[in-house]
Amino acid sequence: MAKTKMIIDCDTGVDDALAISYILANPDIEFLGISTTFGNVSVDQSVKNSLLLLEMFHREDVKVYRGMEHNWKSDSYYRDPRLDDIHGRNGIGNVDLGEPKRKAEDICAVDFIVDCARKYGEDLHVVFVGPLTNFGECVKKDPEAMKRINITIMGGALTVQGNRDIYSEANIFDDPVAAKYVFGSEAHINVIPLDVTLKTLFKVSDIKEWKEINEAGKNLYEIARFYYVNEYQDEETGGAMHDPLAAFASYDPSIITNWFRCNLTVEENGRMIGTFRELNLPEKRHSVALDVDAKRFTETYIELVTRMIKDL
Amino acid sequence: MAKTKMIIDCDTGVDDALAISYILANPDIEFLGISTTFGNVSVDQSVKNSLLLLEMFHREDVKVYRGMEHNWKSDSYYRDPRLDDIHGRNGIGNVDLGEPKRKAEDICAVDFIVDCARKYGEDLHVVFVGPLTNFGECVKKDPEAMKRINITIMGGALTVQGNRDIYSEANIFDDPVAAKYVFGSEAHINVIPLDVTLKTLFKVSDIKEWKEINEAGKNLYEIARFYYVNEYQDEETGGAMHDPLAAFASYDPSIITNWFRCNLTVEENGRMIGTFRELNLPEKRHSVALDVDAKRFTETYIELVTRMIKDL
Repeated sequence: MAKTKMIIDCDTGVDDALAISYILANPDIEFLGISTTFGNVSVDQSVKNSLLLLEMFHREDVKVYRGMEHNWKSDSYYRDPRLDDIHGRNGIGNVDLGEPKRKAEDICAVDFIVDCARKYGEDLHVVFVGPLTNFGECVKKDPEAMKRINITIMGGALTVQGNRDIYSEANIFDDPVAAKYVFGSEAHINVIPLDVTLKTLFKVSDIKEWKEINEAGKNLYEIARFYYVNEYQDEETGGAMHDPLAAFASYDPSIITNWFRCNLTVEENGRMIGTFRELNLPEKRHSVALDVDAKRFTETYIELVTRMIKDL
Repeated sequence: MAKTKMIIDCDTGVDDALAISYILANPDIEFLGISTTFGNVSVDQSVKNSLLLLEMFHREDVKVYRGMEHNWKSDSYYRDPRLDDIHGRNGIGNVDLGEPKRKAEDICAVDFIVDCARKYGEDLHVVFVGPLTNFGECVKKDPEAMKRINITIMGGALTVQGNRDIYSEANIFDDPVAAKYVFGSEAHINVIPLDVTLKTLFKVSDIKEWKEINEAGKNLYEIARFYYVNEYQDEETGGAMHDPLAAFASYDPSIITNWFRCNLTVEENGRMIGTFRELNLPEKRHSVALDVDAKRFTETYIELVTRMIKDL
């Protein structure tokens, strides 16, 4: 069977790093490249973190593309100081991985995604785990090509409160205009919201084996541990695997045990919600994950990533 | 097979009248009584409308009980003037059914429901289709008894915007304090929100046969028609069968094709939403309807009610 061709578009913070690790670790995925955006960190820090993670895993074959610098409603990137406590100042838990040897490719992330969409069509999987600005630019550039590919986003909170405020999840909040635009487009989108990612909490004890294996394992453990300890103030509560679940569900949608089909929009306040107007349309553009097989996800994720670290 | 014992607690407006009609029309339901509350109309108008509907269908065997007059956060009932346009000034589409011959029973609605809960336990079905004030009083009075019975409410909007404002559905909005209280109690609740009731629109043409059958048919047709025309400004868009769907789903839960299990709460603004804190509790107290077999519901409803009208 042909491998699944995948691109991840990320604002490389801690759970983005754990999602990249999953894509690298899954032998049945052909990793086409990392496209970067702002969010947890600036787009430049996102490029840097992505390059460093690829070097750490000896995967310089995977290229990194630089995307948009800021959202559609402002003209610069502002980093919420609270992010220092969640993802660390550098986005990867204040773990120092040095300076990358490589740079981002010359071609822009948006052009890279659209080119792949035109080339691979329905065989392409793109996972957007940051603000949806690059996604919006892709739809502006070639809405037809973006209709044909498999798209999964990590974003929104449909049946629970948000994590930025009670209405809004961080990725949607960080560019509600682009989010509304892509939900209003004809693209088919699988949505992995807080509703399920908060049901997949990893504990530090689940991954403690990594730190004994080698330097890369120790670094990935420290990156994850910072997030787990700081987001929930408790190692044993664990951290939500937001972005890894989106990458996993793009490869294997059966991990989601309740896909709810609807047509979404985004309000000005950043709330993702179904539209009244389209409730009785037979065609549903969006599939929202409402339940997940958390046990299988956790076990499979840890098994794959542990094996990759051991095989380095 | 024993008949299903059912009580409906309603603020008798148009769709409440259509829900009462369904319970009367279903030969497999034993209709224990109507408990009344404020909302679409005052509790006294709700008693009056309920009595008049029962007389119209020659069902004076069904008793009516008067419940709470106002919600838990104020000391009197206020009727939103916009309700004149949805349910009519009298709550039943300004159709004049005269004065009822009977009165409400002496026993209060809350005592009636709790007595039935103690007597029938899991064999009892109670359908709350107005604000949840009477329900809250029942839980205060006997939380253990209310844990054992089957409870279905019409209320909330989980994956779509509300109908009172973008966050809030009218029944939850009208007593958010009682709603939060019952969701926090140990009662198991099946929730029929706007997410599904807005997928069950009846058109005037679907029920036009009623007006030719007899006086009761003509009256029920006129009551429904007022609502259809006024809520949507369009006879052929139809009206949402909020309350009838709740009564139907209490008798036959398989009409709901996606029951989403979660633990709900209510925010101060009246939004019904899943709680973060209880997301990973294995035990879920609430089942929220997210999809419905609208065709079977519509066909079965119209067949049953048409037959009842013909058999008068």
